[in-house]
Amino acid sequence: MIYTITFNPSIDYFVSLDNLTVGQLNRSAVEFFKAGGKGINVSQVLTNFGLNNIALGFVGGFTGKKLVDLLNENNINNDMIFIENQNTRINVKISANNETEINADGIFVDEKDVDNLIIKLKDIKFDDYVVISGNISKKCSINLYKYLVEKIKTLCNNIVVDCSGDLLKSVLKLEPFLVKPNLKELEQFANSELKTDYDIKQAMIKMQKCGAKNVLLSKGSDKAVFLRTDGLFYEKEPYKGKVVNTIGCGDSMVAGFIYEYIKTGDTKKAFNFSVAVSSASAFKTGLADKNDLKKLDLDI
Amino acid sequence: MIYTITFNPSIDYFVSLDNLTVGQLNRSAVEFFKAGGKGINVSQVLTNFGLNNIALGFVGGFTGKKLVDLLNENNINNDMIFIENQNTRINVKISANNETEINADGIFVDEKDVDNLIIKLKDIKFDDYVVISGNISKKCSINLYKYLVEKIKTLCNNIVVDCSGDLLKSVLKLEPFLVKPNLKELEQFANSELKTDYDIKQAMIKMQKCGAKNVLLSKGSDKAVFLRTDGLFYEKEPYKGKVVNTIGCGDSMVAGFIYEYIKTGDTKKAFNFSVAVSSASAFKTGLADKNDLKKLDLDI
Repeated sequence: MIYTITFNPSIDYFVSLDNLTVGQLNRSAVEFFKAGGKGINVSQVLTNFGLNNIALGFVGGFTGKKLVDLLNENNINNDMIFIENQNTRINVKISANNETEINADGIFVDEKDVDNLIIKLKDIKFDDYVVISGNISKKCSINLYKYLVEKIKTLCNNIVVDCSGDLLKSVLKLEPFLVKPNLKELEQFANSELKTDYDIKQAMIKMQKCGAKNVLLSKGSDKAVFLRTDGLFYEKEPYKGKVVNTIGCGDSMVAGFIYEYIKTGDTKKAFNFSVAVSSASAFKTGLADKNDLKKLDLDI
Repeated sequence: MIYTITFNPSIDYFVSLDNLTVGQLNRSAVEFFKAGGKGINVSQVLTNFGLNNIALGFVGGFTGKKLVDLLNENNINNDMIFIENQNTRINVKISANNETEINADGIFVDEKDVDNLIIKLKDIKFDDYVVISGNISKKCSINLYKYLVEKIKTLCNNIVVDCSGDLLKSVLKLEPFLVKPNLKELEQFANSELKTDYDIKQAMIKMQKCGAKNVLLSKGSDKAVFLRTDGLFYEKEPYKGKVVNTIGCGDSMVAGFIYEYIKTGDTKKAFNFSVAVSSASAFKTGLADKNDLKKLDLDI
């Protein structure tokens, strides 16, 4: 089984207007809601590819109930922890002359809540996968994140982590099976600008030395780079196509890697497939599914 | 009994951040929700003054349920019509270096829904009051608004209307007991800029000639002007104090007028009281209550 964990999911509220004027009353023309959260995106792609998984996370209030409704509508298996007296955050996504986002901080979670989440993993096997994607609310201590990963580490060997900054640093020594930084996150980790391929690879090696087994770097439209447990590097450019949406492409990459790795046990194939799924997500408004891959000239 | 009707209420989502940058990801520091809607504000003030009333309106979805929860938390009697497969709109109120608002269009309502609302008025008496405050979604025809007011007119003699533009024009001939334009709305009606007191009074007289019995003009920090059924004008400056919030001041004025008019039957007293209640709402974050009036040097 694969479990995904989204610490701080959201209801994404998309509003569309011709022009956003700061300091004034603006009127939107179109509005809709989507379930937001990096782990939830991973679950959506795994579900789209027919791989059984359960989305876990912390939700609350009327927005939390709506989030679960949205997951159910999208056939995403889920088993969320409800936090009392708090609401799942609403992130506002404004599509106008520019794309402007206002992300809220989110809900406060404590050790007891994390323990309740661990209870949801009671049937986990040591060779199952747990994908922990996205950051936590600023209200929560970094130690809480580490506490969660430590607890999971005792239950399962294959932890995938996609977070940034001090959160990522705090859990590397727990030897996650896979980490997936983007360039900005890798630079944060290295504490320096990474201008050349050499710089990038050195930073990835450093990340591995800190504990990560496999390091998967997403670099958007440029390329993806993979550092295998044994020190071998792979690189791959994204597939060619018209990019219509890059939201969730990194999460699609994580899902693609896991899908192919579980199927073949081959990290090179898994890496190549991860790039294909990420590209396929970039070419559509939603997230990739099996049919989208048929349109690519796959070279896995 | 007093009934208030809000055609298109909202959940107001307040987010607060240091600086809103268009074209970027912004992170908010504080978020909270409030029930929004002009009729709902009137109901809140009437409730604060201990005057029994029922808030009616059209709501839908998870945001509609939340709206009703918020009304109940604020002790506002309500009996909302639930519209299927639609959500009550969320209006985003951004407090940063500037105040920026993004208001959504809202839910579509049809004649059947209006008929369902009329059923809620089954116990109404001819000398009761119905306050219809706020505009309708652009998705709805103006005729629907007129249809609602026409139906109510057969049931009740005292209709108060607070709306703008063509909506207002369409219902004046139904002889509402009171209309409450602000200066912008009066200018819209007159189709010209109203520079002098004379211009303003002429426009108010025109509004009365079109059917309105009493015309109450709110002019913010400047003054309020009242035109009585018999053609007599009253004017009054707002009370002196530190203005902290002008949201809902116009609605407070409507509520204040109705409260005092029902108590005394005296339009002059009602007008004076309406200015006091509006001022009291401006001096606090929420809407005025009885205690706030004690702080003013009342001259009713």
